[in-house]
Amino acid sequence: MDAPVDAARAAVPPVQPPRGGTPYPLVAREARGGDAAVHVRGVAIGGDAVQVIAGPCSVETESQMRAAAAAVAAGGAAMMRGGAFKPRTSPYAFQGAGPDGLTLLTAAAMRHGLPVVTELTDVRMLDAFLRAGVDAIQVGTRNMQNYDLLKELGRVDVPVVLKRGMSATIAEWLLAAEYVAAGGNRRIVLCERGIRTFETAYRNVLDVTAIPVAKRETHLPVIVDPSHAGGKAWLVPALAAAAVAAGADGLLIEVHPVPAQAWCDAEQALTPGEFAALMRTLRAVAAATGRSLGGDRVAATAQREDIPSGCAQPGPGGSRAPRMRARASDIRDAVR
Amino acid sequence: MDAPVDAARAAVPPVQPPRGGTPYPLVAREARGGDAAVHVRGVAIGGDAVQVIAGPCSVETESQMRAAAAAVAAGGAAMMRGGAFKPRTSPYAFQGAGPDGLTLLTAAAMRHGLPVVTELTDVRMLDAFLRAGVDAIQVGTRNMQNYDLLKELGRVDVPVVLKRGMSATIAEWLLAAEYVAAGGNRRIVLCERGIRTFETAYRNVLDVTAIPVAKRETHLPVIVDPSHAGGKAWLVPALAAAAVAAGADGLLIEVHPVPAQAWCDAEQALTPGEFAALMRTLRAVAAATGRSLGGDRVAATAQREDIPSGCAQPGPGGSRAPRMRARASDIRDAVR
Amino acid sequence: MDAPVDAARAAVPPVQPPRGGTPYPLVAREARGGDAAVHVRGVAIGGDAVQVIAGPCSVETESQMRAAAAAVAAGGAAMMRGGAFKPRTSPYAFQGAGPDGLTLLTAAAMRHGLPVVTELTDVRMLDAFLRAGVDAIQVGTRNMQNYDLLKELGRVDVPVVLKRGMSATIAEWLLAAEYVAAGGNRRIVLCERGIRTFETAYRNVLDVTAIPVAKRETHLPVIVDPSHAGGKAWLVPALAAAAVAAGADGLLIEVHPVPAQAWCDAEQALTPGEFAALMRTLRAVAAATGRSLGGDRVAATAQREDIPSGCAQPGPGGSRAPRMRARASDIRDAVR
Amino acid sequence: MDAPVDAARAAVPPVQPPRGGTPYPLVAREARGGDAAVHVRGVAIGGDAVQVIAGPCSVETESQMRAAAAAVAAGGAAMMRGGAFKPRTSPYAFQGAGPDGLTLLTAAAMRHGLPVVTELTDVRMLDAFLRAGVDAIQVGTRNMQNYDLLKELGRVDVPVVLKRGMSATIAEWLLAAEYVAAGGNRRIVLCERGIRTFETAYRNVLDVTAIPVAKRETHLPVIVDPSHAGGKAWLVPALAAAAVAAGADGLLIEVHPVPAQAWCDAEQALTPGEFAALMRTLRAVAAATGRSLGGDRVAATAQREDIPSGCAQPGPGGSRAPRMRARASDIRDAVR
Repeated sequence: MDAPVDAARAAVPPVQPPRGGTPYPLVAREARGGDAAVHVRGVAIGGDAVQVIAGPCSVETESQMRAAAAAVAAGGAAMMRGGAFKPRTSPYAFQGAGPDGLTLLTAAAMRHGLPVVTELTDVRMLDAFLRAGVDAIQVGTRNMQNYDLLKELGRVDVPVVLKRGMSATIAEWLLAAEYVAAGGNRRIVLCERGIRTFETAYRNVLDVTAIPVAKRETHLPVIVDPSHAGGKAWLVPALAAAAVAAGADGLLIEVHPVPAQAWCDAEQALTPGEFAALMRTLRAVAAATGRSLGGDRVAATAQREDIPSGCAQPGPGGSRAPRMRARASDIRDAVR
Repeated sequence: MDAPVDAARAAVPPVQPPRGGTPYPLVAREARGGDAAVHVRGVAIGGDAVQVIAGPCSVETESQMRAAAAAVAAGGAAMMRGGAFKPRTSPYAFQGAGPDGLTLLTAAAMRHGLPVVTELTDVRMLDAFLRAGVDAIQVGTRNMQNYDLLKELGRVDVPVVLKRGMSATIAEWLLAAEYVAAGGNRRIVLCERGIRTFETAYRNVLDVTAIPVAKRETHLPVIVDPSHAGGKAWLVPALAAAAVAAGADGLLIEVHPVPAQAWCDAEQALTPGEFAALMRTLRAVAAATGRSLGGDRVAATAQREDIPSGCAQPGPGGSRAPRMRARASDIRDAVR
Repeated sequence: MDAPVDAARAAVPPVQPPRGGTPYPLVAREARGGDAAVHVRGVAIGGDAVQVIAGPCSVETESQMRAAAAAVAAGGAAMMRGGAFKPRTSPYAFQGAGPDGLTLLTAAAMRHGLPVVTELTDVRMLDAFLRAGVDAIQVGTRNMQNYDLLKELGRVDVPVVLKRGMSATIAEWLLAAEYVAAGGNRRIVLCERGIRTFETAYRNVLDVTAIPVAKRETHLPVIVDPSHAGGKAWLVPALAAAAVAAGADGLLIEVHPVPAQAWCDAEQALTPGEFAALMRTLRAVAAATGRSLGGDRVAATAQREDIPSGCAQPGPGGSRAPRMRARASDIRDAVR
Repeated sequence: MDAPVDAARAAVPPVQPPRGGTPYPLVAREARGGDAAVHVRGVAIGGDAVQVIAGPCSVETESQMRAAAAAVAAGGAAMMRGGAFKPRTSPYAFQGAGPDGLTLLTAAAMRHGLPVVTELTDVRMLDAFLRAGVDAIQVGTRNMQNYDLLKELGRVDVPVVLKRGMSATIAEWLLAAEYVAAGGNRRIVLCERGIRTFETAYRNVLDVTAIPVAKRETHLPVIVDPSHAGGKAWLVPALAAAAVAAGADGLLIEVHPVPAQAWCDAEQALTPGEFAALMRTLRAVAAATGRSLGGDRVAATAQREDIPSGCAQPGPGGSRAPRMRARASDIRDAVR
């Protein structure tokens, strides 16, 4: 017989196709009418405060993680990062500490009350991540269009930090977020981390324009990873300051107790001292644009009621994005 | 205690890190001393004959697949393609027929003795693909750096068609192949499918230069997908001819019984008549560069002994790539 | 007073702005209803024959030019190239032989009856080029949007070979041609020479897709420079064959008597022997796509009446571009 | 005879080729040992103060220019911009007011004591620019590699604002500056204005990373044009703030009395009110990174002695660029 295959339909997510203008109805700004903060164990990303997430590129040893967590907390970071599963270009490069790395990460962060975010590369490891008590799951640039992974993340109630693909358009990035949202999980944080261009003098080109554009198109918070963008520690301060000035809701910064000994991306990690100095500058830049830095989060979070997970609250002051005169239809038209 | 985490080492593939010059010792040309053909159920990709793989973008219905298989066989294709799991930019687009689609594909192709290749997007579906009798597994452009998927494919004995990431460098592409090879599976076919650039007048820019460059760097066969590269049916003939003239070992062409009714990528599929006409042109272009077209494969394969799977044989005449004066170190240097 | 400045209007070319759909009414395909050949002293570019233009990157010495012209003629080229004014990335690199170089070029080519094309970089040198008897003027990739230069070339009656900017879209390229045409000179040949992308393993990415697309959009002939595209001599054969297979009307190939001694771009020049061998392959590829190679031009041009300059004739068989099902509006929409 | 052509040598600029490491010995940072300010009629670009240059995209009418100059001065800009010769993609677009436009620009700016910068596209117009009293000459993105123009600018004593080519690498940009410097004119200001990438949602991608990288490689000041980068007025505030936070020495901002009536690039011009509001934000951001805004330049310049033209002085505090741990050799290696 010749009827359409039933499985074809069953494979489509159980949501209705978009009507009207937007190709991403759930993450589009009009779905909320403004910014919506995503809460990660008490830390509100997308509210008044700019939140800094810091830590080493990869989890290495217990002492490294203890020192890193102490440095990160002392510098005033709101959350900790660290990779236990590393997507490396070469199969012969260090691939990450694996499941034990998750334990080292959460244990080190817990001593300082820091929520953790770490990257998931294999959909089969999702349960292990949840069991390990990971507070937020990062989808890396190489997996932004790993749709099976995105679909699974849509079915759990854990915040997702979705990095932009290194050559993904804004429209593709928002559609990747829509994959997660379509499954029911709307706790999504977008993360710009530099794009690939013709320029070879630096690792990637940090696309600061993506910050105001993504914030105008969606209600999701937008954070920035200046470490992977520039690929060099000496570039991080300038790029981090630029991101905050352009309206980023947070930063993802690599800090290592002894960068020269890092097993991965040694060139781009800050020392604890450099991180602390940078935080002072960032506090001033945030203030210049009417925001605070998350280091003052104790006071800040005391002022607002607890937001249940899965039900993020719009920030009090609406969007931090620059004034917008008209709706840019370019981005949505660009979905092709 | 402070010793390195054991799991960190266990996660590394059980092969030795590269010594000497090449970052991809298993797929580097010198590992074989020349071209090595990959055999897919009797079809040698990488030998004298240029092999054409054709079929619809996605498996839709039984009658569509029967008509497609008949058209593909009549036109002289050596293998059939068809997608049952589709990585779509939007979660609301048709996601593929799923497992039943695999059955429809293999059944339709079997009537004409055509081996099949189809895309695997989710590592958890690998067993289902093998049970369904898929002859070769395609890794799509969005999954070229889905390393967990590549590692699993390294553990099975089935040919892998590895599409180049839409913004992957040659070095990254070869390292992705090395991930598969490092696991033990060396039956890898590279597939160029167009790269992303500033140009928006066409879907992608077919990178014909990648053909001779990849063939000089590696012993793996290189095929080309002119359908996704151009994104328009009227462009396919020119791009397919260019690819063969530049030394491609095969082509992956979208053919649909009624393109206008295709559920996916309707604009880029050829009609059966257009496909047959194109094959005549390609036969002439192949001959102009000293090769045959796979349609004559019965005769061609009779001349060579049967190559056991997993042990591909170097092509008799060595590389088809243009004469090479000196080793380009650019590519390997570019691994960064 | 507050009236619009008169000079503002005077600066606009004396043609009417485009009406209806096309932003480039003079070079659009519908302006002629098909292909139009451009004649360069008896050589028809854009007709049945694929014309090969060959010669060294730069004019160096009298003996070098004599040897180059002999090699080029022996190989069967239809025209000769050679640069006397070189736009170099560094101010400390060899900048070209200057006016004397023009004389060396035309003298060497005249011995073999070859028309010459050479690059003009400075609008103030145009008269010198015309006095030197240059048959066609090349606008290089870096000057594609040097509009003052294009306007001057619009005022003279000499064929212009307009190279595509290394990151110019098709639409921008055709608008650059329209600048020349708007001044009255419609003898324009487009030349694709590779575009700039993220890939660093080769100098540029030859954009073969641009060939059928430009030929469908315009009546202008399209030739290809495989030497600058790949940047390596060993890549030239594959790229040249690909360009002809994709429908190019000609090629611009670097040939040097002793490439290793070339003052400029030594890595990409062919030896006379390599050039002769390549021409044999190209003749076969051209035949496979229903065309001849310009080396047989004596017979070919005898069949058609002499075309007065400035009044190019449509090719007898219409476009050589692949079959076109529908008009792509993408390109014109892309003018932004 | 066979001797090298003399003219070949004569065409090379009368400076010695670079020795040692750097391909651009005159603009390299080590040539000065730190930052060097460029003075434009009393305005020091590259010193403590961030200088804002503002004005309309194109000179239109006398009243438009009067209103623009008043708005620019009231907002606190240090200099005025305005284009009289416009390089437009289409030959049918408004090409600029021409020579009369220069007069309108300088007259309007003079009322408010503002130095002016305006774009030169045609080398034959250089004398007219100098006669009109232009204070600084801009080389646009499309002419960054118009080497004949750069050579002429090297022979005059007027500051040059050199925009980065829209797909030029940092190395190519610095070599373009070296062309000017090699002629004797070292009063060069670099201007980043966005690069061309795969992203089509905005006009260009502002490359903030280029700011610290260029400042570390060279002693030249680096300013930024956020208007052309984003192509939309609503993006200008975020991009301008990001540029200052990343260490830019100045900004080039489009301001029009009535943007909706602008003859050119209407979408990206700020209104006078928007400009004034932006200046307040920029003053805060500059302060956060330890700098002042040029509006306070009267006080600032009083503290330093007058610098004769052609002999710029290193900034008192050395580089404003972020701390640099080691010399990046990537950029210089990238010159190919």
